[in-house]
Amino acid sequence: MEGCMPSDANYAPLTPVSFLERAAVVYGDRTAVVSGGREYSWRETRERCLAGASALARLGVGRRDVVAVIAANIPAMYELHFSVPMAGGVLCTLNTRHDAAMVSVLLRHSEAKVFLVESQFLAVAHDALRLLADAKAKFPLVIAISDTGDSSSSDGGGLEYEALLRDAPRGFEIRWPADERDPISLNYTSGTTSRPKGVIYSHRGAYLNSLAALLCNDMTSMPVYLWTVPMFHCNGWCMAWATAAQGGTNICVRNVVPKVIFEQIVRHGVTNMGGAPTVLNMIVNAPASERRPLPRRVLISTGGAPPPPQVLAKMEELGFNVQHGYGLTETYGPATRCVWRPEWDALPLAERARIKALQGVQHQMLQDVDIKDPVTMASVPSDGRAVGEVMLRGNTVMSGYYKDAAATEEAMRGGWLRTGDLGVRHPDGYIQLKDRAKDIIISGGENISSIEVESVLFGHHAVLDAAVVARPDDHWGETACAFVTLKDGASATAHEIIAFCRARLPRYMAPRTVVFGDLPKTSTGKTQKFLLREKARAMGSLPMQSKSKL
Amino acid sequence: MEGCMPSDANYAPLTPVSFLERAAVVYGDRTAVVSGGREYSWRETRERCLAGASALARLGVGRRDVVAVIAANIPAMYELHFSVPMAGGVLCTLNTRHDAAMVSVLLRHSEAKVFLVESQFLAVAHDALRLLADAKAKFPLVIAISDTGDSSSSDGGGLEYEALLRDAPRGFEIRWPADERDPISLNYTSGTTSRPKGVIYSHRGAYLNSLAALLCNDMTSMPVYLWTVPMFHCNGWCMAWATAAQGGTNICVRNVVPKVIFEQIVRHGVTNMGGAPTVLNMIVNAPASERRPLPRRVLISTGGAPPPPQVLAKMEELGFNVQHGYGLTETYGPATRCVWRPEWDALPLAERARIKALQGVQHQMLQDVDIKDPVTMASVPSDGRAVGEVMLRGNTVMSGYYKDAAATEEAMRGGWLRTGDLGVRHPDGYIQLKDRAKDIIISGGENISSIEVESVLFGHHAVLDAAVVARPDDHWGETACAFVTLKDGASATAHEIIAFCRARLPRYMAPRTVVFGDLPKTSTGKTQKFLLREKARAMGSLPMQSKSKL
Repeated sequence: MEGCMPSDANYAPLTPVSFLERAAVVYGDRTAVVSGGREYSWRETRERCLAGASALARLGVGRRDVVAVIAANIPAMYELHFSVPMAGGVLCTLNTRHDAAMVSVLLRHSEAKVFLVESQFLAVAHDALRLLADAKAKFPLVIAISDTGDSSSSDGGGLEYEALLRDAPRGFEIRWPADERDPISLNYTSGTTSRPKGVIYSHRGAYLNSLAALLCNDMTSMPVYLWTVPMFHCNGWCMAWATAAQGGTNICVRNVVPKVIFEQIVRHGVTNMGGAPTVLNMIVNAPASERRPLPRRVLISTGGAPPPPQVLAKMEELGFNVQHGYGLTETYGPATRCVWRPEWDALPLAERARIKALQGVQHQMLQDVDIKDPVTMASVPSDGRAVGEVMLRGNTVMSGYYKDAAATEEAMRGGWLRTGDLGVRHPDGYIQLKDRAKDIIISGGENISSIEVESVLFGHHAVLDAAVVARPDDHWGETACAFVTLKDGASATAHEIIAFCRARLPRYMAPRTVVFGDLPKTSTGKTQKFLLREKARAMGSLPMQSKSKL
Repeated sequence: MEGCMPSDANYAPLTPVSFLERAAVVYGDRTAVVSGGREYSWRETRERCLAGASALARLGVGRRDVVAVIAANIPAMYELHFSVPMAGGVLCTLNTRHDAAMVSVLLRHSEAKVFLVESQFLAVAHDALRLLADAKAKFPLVIAISDTGDSSSSDGGGLEYEALLRDAPRGFEIRWPADERDPISLNYTSGTTSRPKGVIYSHRGAYLNSLAALLCNDMTSMPVYLWTVPMFHCNGWCMAWATAAQGGTNICVRNVVPKVIFEQIVRHGVTNMGGAPTVLNMIVNAPASERRPLPRRVLISTGGAPPPPQVLAKMEELGFNVQHGYGLTETYGPATRCVWRPEWDALPLAERARIKALQGVQHQMLQDVDIKDPVTMASVPSDGRAVGEVMLRGNTVMSGYYKDAAATEEAMRGGWLRTGDLGVRHPDGYIQLKDRAKDIIISGGENISSIEVESVLFGHHAVLDAAVVARPDDHWGETACAFVTLKDGASATAHEIIAFCRARLPRYMAPRTVVFGDLPKTSTGKTQKFLLREKARAMGSLPMQSKSKL
């Protein structure tokens, strides 16, 4: 349009780095990060990030260079979310549960130029580096981080984080992204396949998803955020950046256990937190002695598995407001939320829990979510019954898989991100997940949603945790096999559990096998179903005699 | 970065149109717009907007075609904020106080292809069209809008809004912007110069400023917004779009008077509203019989002039939370906010009022605000004393002035939007306006900030409204001349007012002349100082005798 004039006055690339720059001015004296005995204001945090960027630049980190880190939720981990992009680099946060072999694979795949290692992970890191050396692969510069902020902990001679900050040349000029779609971080999915998938986030996507996180979580001015979600996981669902936009306070804790959670909420007046289903489970099952009355309602955002009614009721009773969402590493964390309507408050608990378990609707910054036929790409009817694949599109979908154009193309075929998850859409527009495509159990030609069976299992008074997978069956093809963890002191037999399910589900859906014990979890609290599937497969087919009962 | 793949799956142009699309899904049954006896849900609003876009397209509106409208805050006005961009067009909202001459100038300058006219403005519009005809200028298609939503009000034969919606072809495909920096609206500043300045807003800027409006006003899920700010003014500070992003309810009122404001707040549970200083004044001076106890605290965003302590105290007492901001048409409305720090709550009223009157800090989506020497472009020291020009930059700065590249270049010289306002920056980073460059009074070589004198005047118990301008003076060059409106029933003499100011200001700053009467206002509630300046100039220089007393 005549008169339009793009210039520095009216255009700036979208990047979460701008949140920090503003926070240092607007919320300068307010506490940005609390960790153990340490506290940093937003002004200090910005200074530390700038020093970090300066130090990284001096070590040779330039545009698009990958900087890897393995660390818990400590101040340095938080700061790297800004200092690495400020230096032009790409932050690659590694899962703290990875073993040396996996770490070496990811260092190699990411071609990390610098590798920051919190002291507790130095042994794993050294082993990983030895593997790299053995393979004659490129070797990153290693920087040790003390978990106490003490610079003396370095193992002699090596680079150390606090010392680098102290000695960094002042007056570093931030390397703003040349293009807002430039990469800001690289998040390897906790995949189990041999081929690592490095999900690339852009400055633009991170900026927008941060805003969505604020809006969805009702995070108004100067919130207090308790970190239970690991920052290495989708950059803490982008909350690492989002809190800066509102001048929030980041409460970092070493041990995510109920006692600490309650203590920190009370001490700091926590307003928001995130939590995998295991964290919710942990909270509701905490002994009364570890609980504390909450000073105000805490909004807790959860995802991964819908909260069962019992957990939900208990959480509400304890003073939490649970919000359920759904997303993938490929969508910067939660992409949909079960946006709560005030009129639902008056519904009975069971009904509220049923609604709250829905995956809901796209957040403000995601363009679209749809349930589609993966072949024709037609939307399925919004009748709550027609199953299709959950597909998403918008600015908060990843830029692609690092060095894997084929996988990227496959994932985004047809202009939508294909999630591999199966779901339905209800008449009111809310979507509901039925299962991962690979988790569906096909029994006698009928699809069994493992999620539906699990939600029934969670309703049993003795069940703490549950997961359902397919067990091979000569006659039915597959049947449902339940892995169940009982609550401390509770007891139930396999027969009781099966009978409980049969009373509440079509007969073909009820588990035919129940196995008791702990469930294998990823570091983000997700049940590792592939391990359970292997176990179930190893059991072989059920004897024919039992089948007749089916 | 290798593997990055731009596609429809991970990129969508930022546009507020997406807020409406989502609102229709997420908040479909909730009330979007209330006006008189009418109510439309988000689903209905989206359907009406789509029909509107379809109708406009059928009338020939294509990409970048300007659609002008003159209307109060009625549903059609709200809908045009979406339907015009959905058709690819550019919305040009005209000030409802413009006369036929001005309307014809703006229709001609904007080359509007379609002109929507609410029934009460048909006479002005017809006169404006006659002027266009006389000048043999291009003529827009005229569409009449009834203020009651009744389609029979059209003056025979002509196009009518409701009828067009009803008859529009279904299945219209939204024309998403090809580039997010494409224009979405054209806002003529209520300038007094002969050359109209059409400020161009982009889809991207409107999207981001809407988010800033939500974040700054603590507008969480499903807010209730009372419209006192005219939608024609900076698209209602972008609130026309912002409410859609959170599924808010827009309460439109015909008469912005205290009785109606209190009634609507109580009836609809209003959470947020905006208001020029005159609206605040009106509220605090309303007779007790028109006031109602508020069901919950209402956040009211104000700008233009800092709220005086008395007004602030009274507003708080009545249940409002006043937020002060500062901006220009060129910045999509408020660009800075006096972000409130919880620790200030405990300060005495005078101190709170002093802080609240600051213009504050940039909002989340604005890159930067600075106080600069307009020649060297160096930042002035943050000492609360050094005066410089307020300059802004970021994505929520206009794209430019329509068909006026020279003015655009002049305004954005050096990569910053030059506001023409003078201000200081305090050590804590908050900025404070001292005056418009043209409003500064230079007396005996000293600068007098008209704002400072006005804030003292507002402290006088009898003063309802005040404005200070320069009066020419043979000896001093200029002296301060105060125009004062007294409260109903209150009285004060010029002598008393001057004495009151002298007790509180350096002698040279106190007004030498006081004129009583109503102040001329723009339709957005701003005092028209240029008119007062003309009056003061017409008075001529003060007699020498008085000067000696100065």
